[in-house]
Amino acid sequence: MSISMYDASVPVFRQMLGAMAGLLEKAEAYSTEKKIDGSVLLQSRLFPDMFPLVRQVQIACDFAKSVPARLADVEVPAYDDTEQDFAELHARIARTLAFIDGLDPLLFEGSHEREIVLRPGTPKERRFTGTAYLLHYGLPQFYFHVTTAYALLRHNGVAVGKLDFMGVR
Amino acid sequence: MSISMYDASVPVFRQMLGAMAGLLEKAEAYSTEKKIDGSVLLQSRLFPDMFPLVRQVQIACDFAKSVPARLADVEVPAYDDTEQDFAELHARIARTLAFIDGLDPLLFEGSHEREIVLRPGTPKERRFTGTAYLLHYGLPQFYFHVTTAYALLRHNGVAVGKLDFMGVR
Repeated sequence: MSISMYDASVPVFRQMLGAMAGLLEKAEAYSTEKKIDGSVLLQSRLFPDMFPLVRQVQIACDFAKSVPARLADVEVPAYDDTEQDFAELHARIARTLAFIDGLDPLLFEGSHEREIVLRPGTPKERRFTGTAYLLHYGLPQFYFHVTTAYALLRHNGVAVGKLDFMGVR
Repeated sequence: MSISMYDASVPVFRQMLGAMAGLLEKAEAYSTEKKIDGSVLLQSRLFPDMFPLVRQVQIACDFAKSVPARLADVEVPAYDDTEQDFAELHARIARTLAFIDGLDPLLFEGSHEREIVLRPGTPKERRFTGTAYLLHYGLPQFYFHVTTAYALLRHNGVAVGKLDFMGVR
């Protein structure tokens, strides 16, 4: 009568990470075709104080690794944020996919009611049940960055559509 | 050990619809302060063949009503898409909130494995289990339009931030 914490997280992140990789493939093809340096797209922003595309992809990966890791109660892998081109972003996505694909679904059992503490001991500490952390914090944050990456590409003229966003290829 | 179909849907839509209403409040205040006709923001687009803000909000509401309705196996309320100002968009959001708040959680029982058929009998027919429909179709689509509404406002200079998007007020 319900959804497991594993099914509500890992396959969703997998779908959207795959979609994001597809978006970046089309972005790179566009930059090649238009003779635009790839970094122009990767550094583009929708507004000066918003993060550029490269950072949107990095942060999307951060949520895709940290949310399942915390639910599975394993250490969140640390990534350096050094990506500067499409190939490096693809590697970050692939690394994230490999990490979540390696998580045993059994580790997620009981995570719906386990307490998740973000930024423990700091003034910004936040406490959630596992369910609230996933549904009301992790997934909205993740979708925010994937969609903003899509919006940045559309705004720059890359011919991507809803099917690309949805990961239907 | 798991999440109910009700908890994975209605409270999530409620959170993000509330957030979207808050975004529109800030957008309207901005248009008043800057002496910009509200329709300029509502008709703004990130690219000429993308939907404008007003349509993004309409479609977000459409997913927020249709996904819970189909899971609860009740008729999807029909809306005319006639909104032309902020007040009318707030009314659409309020109507959507009232609809989903009125759905009995018991109606969602068994929906995880019930077959959901979109556009039945057409060439674009799609069939899902309830779980796949919610997690891999409905929520990504919904987040897409809420985030794009946010992106449009940010791109137009409205001072909204991640907390507004998350519905933390």
